[in-house]
Amino acid sequence: MNLKKKVSIAVVRRLPRYYRYLADLLKMDITRISSKELSMRMGITASQIRQDLNCFGGFGQQGYGYNVELLYNEIGNILGLNNNFQAVILGAGNMGQALANYTNFEKRGFKIIGIFDVNPELIGKKIKDIEIFDIDILDEFVKKNKVDIGMLCVPFEQTPIVAERLARLGVKGLWNFSPMDLKLPYNVVIENVHLSDSLMVLGYRMNEKFKNDK
Amino acid sequence: MNLKKKVSIAVVRRLPRYYRYLADLLKMDITRISSKELSMRMGITASQIRQDLNCFGGFGQQGYGYNVELLYNEIGNILGLNNNFQAVILGAGNMGQALANYTNFEKRGFKIIGIFDVNPELIGKKIKDIEIFDIDILDEFVKKNKVDIGMLCVPFEQTPIVAERLARLGVKGLWNFSPMDLKLPYNVVIENVHLSDSLMVLGYRMNEKFKNDK
Repeated sequence: MNLKKKVSIAVVRRLPRYYRYLADLLKMDITRISSKELSMRMGITASQIRQDLNCFGGFGQQGYGYNVELLYNEIGNILGLNNNFQAVILGAGNMGQALANYTNFEKRGFKIIGIFDVNPELIGKKIKDIEIFDIDILDEFVKKNKVDIGMLCVPFEQTPIVAERLARLGVKGLWNFSPMDLKLPYNVVIENVHLSDSLMVLGYRMNEKFKNDK
Repeated sequence: MNLKKKVSIAVVRRLPRYYRYLADLLKMDITRISSKELSMRMGITASQIRQDLNCFGGFGQQGYGYNVELLYNEIGNILGLNNNFQAVILGAGNMGQALANYTNFEKRGFKIIGIFDVNPELIGKKIKDIEIFDIDILDEFVKKNKVDIGMLCVPFEQTPIVAERLARLGVKGLWNFSPMDLKLPYNVVIENVHLSDSLMVLGYRMNEKFKNDK
């Protein structure tokens, strides 16, 4: 089952969370779950869950609930976790190294195959088994290897320059960690990560929770 | 104007984005904007924008649009960016150091006042002007200083332990970078950052955009 109905980006952004919760249920050998139980675990209303999952054709049965493994696999398919995307990291500073050390990406179908930097002290070193290359050989590397995604961890001012270089080389996706909404006139998908957004949400929630304590 | 109507978390999660876009408009000396123009810039429907901002009492006027500065300041107030929250970073590895180097947080009202680690080679060093302390003095430090938020960048297994220690010490907010949905039986707000969620969304959007190229 793979319905090709257009799904809103708001729903798509919730799918990774469903995926994580379902993975946890599988680990606990829970094979089926009602939208109500899932709702209590996830802190989303049951009706939201039913609506979200209906976008993909449902998977639920009245009185039975959801088959956890089926739903888990379907969401994985929808998210394209079997795509074997290959990525490079641009910038071997703290954020670039943190990403290289993150073990979850490969499990999700994203393999990091190289890191690029300008710093001669870093070039040639490895993080886990990923080599740090001179950014001068980036073009050559991208032409020789399948590179789907560039993870942008370079300094702020460098970000649009490096991003454009990757897009011109035909890289189809950019994951941007610089605090800017990067846009490019190229045929490339850009996902901007704004770390301070989630910090601001934390601050809001703290104010809401503790406003009567002040 | 500060309406205290309960706002859905989905709307709250969009506010930091409005805030960033409005900051950019201010920088460009744009003083007013219609929901339609804002919609085109942000890639959100105009009706979504009107709905979102109506939650807070609107700020828009028919035929005039939004006063950019007013809206910017109000969203800042709603997000509590004038709170002067103080935070500590737990773990001075790559992610902890990346956060310490991030300059945007202080502008948003979050000041980092210390970093804690177990590694004797790091203790006593500084990142920007933030000192790395021995985690042994954490309790003492939290008792002496106003610490509102703990930013959790310790290894996966350590995360719940350190989180509980902070919550017991009365820290009210935890910003968790370990790939787990941390939950604690304490009076504490937890915001879990799942980096791979946004990577999965990138993968989904790439598949959608390029599905006809295959």
